[in-house]
Amino acid sequence: MKVSVFRRAHFNAAHRLHNPDLSDEKNLQLFGLCNNPSYHGHNYVLDVKVKGEVDPQTGYVMDTKILKDVIKTEVQDKFDHRNLNLDTMEFKTLNPTAENIAIVIWQSLRKKIADSLELSVRLYETENNYVEFDGK
Amino acid sequence: MKVSVFRRAHFNAAHRLHNPDLSDEKNLQLFGLCNNPSYHGHNYVLDVKVKGEVDPQTGYVMDTKILKDVIKTEVQDKFDHRNLNLDTMEFKTLNPTAENIAIVIWQSLRKKIADSLELSVRLYETENNYVEFDGK
Amino acid sequence: MKVSVFRRAHFNAAHRLHNPDLSDEKNLQLFGLCNNPSYHGHNYVLDVKVKGEVDPQTGYVMDTKILKDVIKTEVQDKFDHRNLNLDTMEFKTLNPTAENIAIVIWQSLRKKIADSLELSVRLYETENNYVEFDGK
Amino acid sequence: MKVSVFRRAHFNAAHRLHNPDLSDEKNLQLFGLCNNPSYHGHNYVLDVKVKGEVDPQTGYVMDTKILKDVIKTEVQDKFDHRNLNLDTMEFKTLNPTAENIAIVIWQSLRKKIADSLELSVRLYETENNYVEFDGK
Amino acid sequence: MKVSVFRRAHFNAAHRLHNPDLSDEKNLQLFGLCNNPSYHGHNYVLDVKVKGEVDPQTGYVMDTKILKDVIKTEVQDKFDHRNLNLDTMEFKTLNPTAENIAIVIWQSLRKKIADSLELSVRLYETENNYVEFDGK
Amino acid sequence: MKVSVFRRAHFNAAHRLHNPDLSDEKNLQLFGLCNNPSYHGHNYVLDVKVKGEVDPQTGYVMDTKILKDVIKTEVQDKFDHRNLNLDTMEFKTLNPTAENIAIVIWQSLRKKIADSLELSVRLYETENNYVEFDGK
Repeated sequence: MKVSVFRRAHFNAAHRLHNPDLSDEKNLQLFGLCNNPSYHGHNYVLDVKVKGEVDPQTGYVMDTKILKDVIKTEVQDKFDHRNLNLDTMEFKTLNPTAENIAIVIWQSLRKKIADSLELSVRLYETENNYVEFDGK
Repeated sequence: MKVSVFRRAHFNAAHRLHNPDLSDEKNLQLFGLCNNPSYHGHNYVLDVKVKGEVDPQTGYVMDTKILKDVIKTEVQDKFDHRNLNLDTMEFKTLNPTAENIAIVIWQSLRKKIADSLELSVRLYETENNYVEFDGK
Repeated sequence: MKVSVFRRAHFNAAHRLHNPDLSDEKNLQLFGLCNNPSYHGHNYVLDVKVKGEVDPQTGYVMDTKILKDVIKTEVQDKFDHRNLNLDTMEFKTLNPTAENIAIVIWQSLRKKIADSLELSVRLYETENNYVEFDGK
Repeated sequence: MKVSVFRRAHFNAAHRLHNPDLSDEKNLQLFGLCNNPSYHGHNYVLDVKVKGEVDPQTGYVMDTKILKDVIKTEVQDKFDHRNLNLDTMEFKTLNPTAENIAIVIWQSLRKKIADSLELSVRLYETENNYVEFDGK
Repeated sequence: MKVSVFRRAHFNAAHRLHNPDLSDEKNLQLFGLCNNPSYHGHNYVLDVKVKGEVDPQTGYVMDTKILKDVIKTEVQDKFDHRNLNLDTMEFKTLNPTAENIAIVIWQSLRKKIADSLELSVRLYETENNYVEFDGK
Repeated sequence: MKVSVFRRAHFNAAHRLHNPDLSDEKNLQLFGLCNNPSYHGHNYVLDVKVKGEVDPQTGYVMDTKILKDVIKTEVQDKFDHRNLNLDTMEFKTLNPTAENIAIVIWQSLRKKIADSLELSVRLYETENNYVEFDGK
């Protein structure tokens, strides 16, 4: 019997959508206002889902205080109050769409979560736009 | 590697729950206050989920500006500020329960979304009542 | 020392914006989609605020269970799952804009709340549109 | 074609995290502030999901008024305004973590929902911590 | 020109409504389920409002990081994961209604906020029940 | 009898807190992470409140479609998907704290709203940090 445990976290970051392999004209056509060279920003909301067996001793799938700390180290310390394009290694060349940010976060968290646990992330760019990635 | 992309939209509509093949007594018994002949209404909230491969050039599964336009044409232009029972072809005879509205919306969107993408819809009638349909 | 106590309630109703003293053309020009003769609807959210001295015996300004019952009798029993234009006395001739609904609700509640207590209402038609009335 | 129907409910309860088979020191180490012997509490939010075929006569998977009543009898009447550790049979010895509460609720609801319907529950302990259980 | 600055914080606590000067019968009659001797609990949400002139050098009315720390020391460290009736000095004899908790919090914060700033607090016991106190 | 009408709008922008009249060291000390030279960003939420008499012909204080258009022209077209420090005239030298952004928005809207109407704005930088300004 497996239970899924979710932990929510927040980070505020600047970004622009831009593929450096394409011309400026093509970038503007593809990304419109999101391509603004001066950047814009979001309050990102991240929901991390970990699924596994409940430990009979603790009643936990995973101690959410530990999950909270992993999210802080792997996500918030890197991205909060940062410019994703300028200040992070991950998005120096990778376009920081919500899809790509979710994949990067999933890959970063995957290394820190026990292999016996399934992992999925949901990332809200705004209330109206969000994405989900489970590694498959 | 597939990512799910979600887009939220809103529409406000009147409706009544009523099956014209049943007697008025049976309708009242089945649907209670929701059967009110003068109609009542809701602020519907629609979350559309599209799942597929991330395009390496754009970093998008699907441009959400396009998804937003499809939702506008297929859902909001038809249902927003309308009476579902009186003003729409879809619910002339079909009872506009949340279940049936979700199926109708899914079928309408399915024709406009690339076959390579999986489609699912979630429809909130109120904060406390919502439904989900993925075509299966 | 006065404390304000708030109680939230919900009702779902159909309405159309229409002033019967004006021509159909003028109504359409003024109210656009909201003038649809077949009606549309909303999930209305009502926040009622009552301000007064805290009773030293109970620690209450007013028992919110009583306030909840007053809101049920004066607002929800009249308006929930109703068509405001067709099914209510209050909006037979009065145009059911959010402003007018808030005034009608305030006047109805005012008679049932002790004179020593100040009364204010906030009414959400949608997340993006709401009004407030305090009788002044 | 199956649709999922969701119904949300609320209950407010006190609890402490404590495994009576472990020492006080071990409990404090495992559960920290949540182990406070005087208890603390939460506004729990429960989303119950029922998935099945849509009845062609009613347009319902399951009448949500009936689902609402089942949740009231099986969950709210037992847990609302209660101390989970002291006032309930279920958590006399079982540690009331969100995971265990979700499992207990699922098991209780499962007996009252038709076998043809799939059942899943999501339980929010706070906005930032929630769990999901579908019986598998 | 004065601007109001708001900071939101959360704490989870157990309580019961009980006036020790009254009989058990009277307490039960006044407070019903909220009088449960084993306690129940809430996720309290606190919005603190500070109003004053904007400092031309910083563009701040008050540094919200400092306000956050004051709320932590004066409210969260005292009340979070506590039983208000058993674990706090403030509610040993004072009935912990939302009204009284708001007054206690306001009085505690008032001593730590500069006299030049106006102070008001809003406390949510649930989404549907909340109170406001500004010291007047 | 006056009613207040509220309209909500959203914009996503990058900014950094920085007072060009102060040294870099002083800026870093005052604003910490918010001083990041590469900027960070937010999903700003703006609630505009207009208070006045209800027009007996329309039942409106002010047509919220017009208010929506004014907010679009005066706020969203200027700030949405922009870098407040780099892309706007208003914050070339003025530090874009929530307080200052609210004042700038109020001043901009004030010129477009009839003098007979009172105006107030609330600006959310995050769920936990927001400000309010009414021109006094």
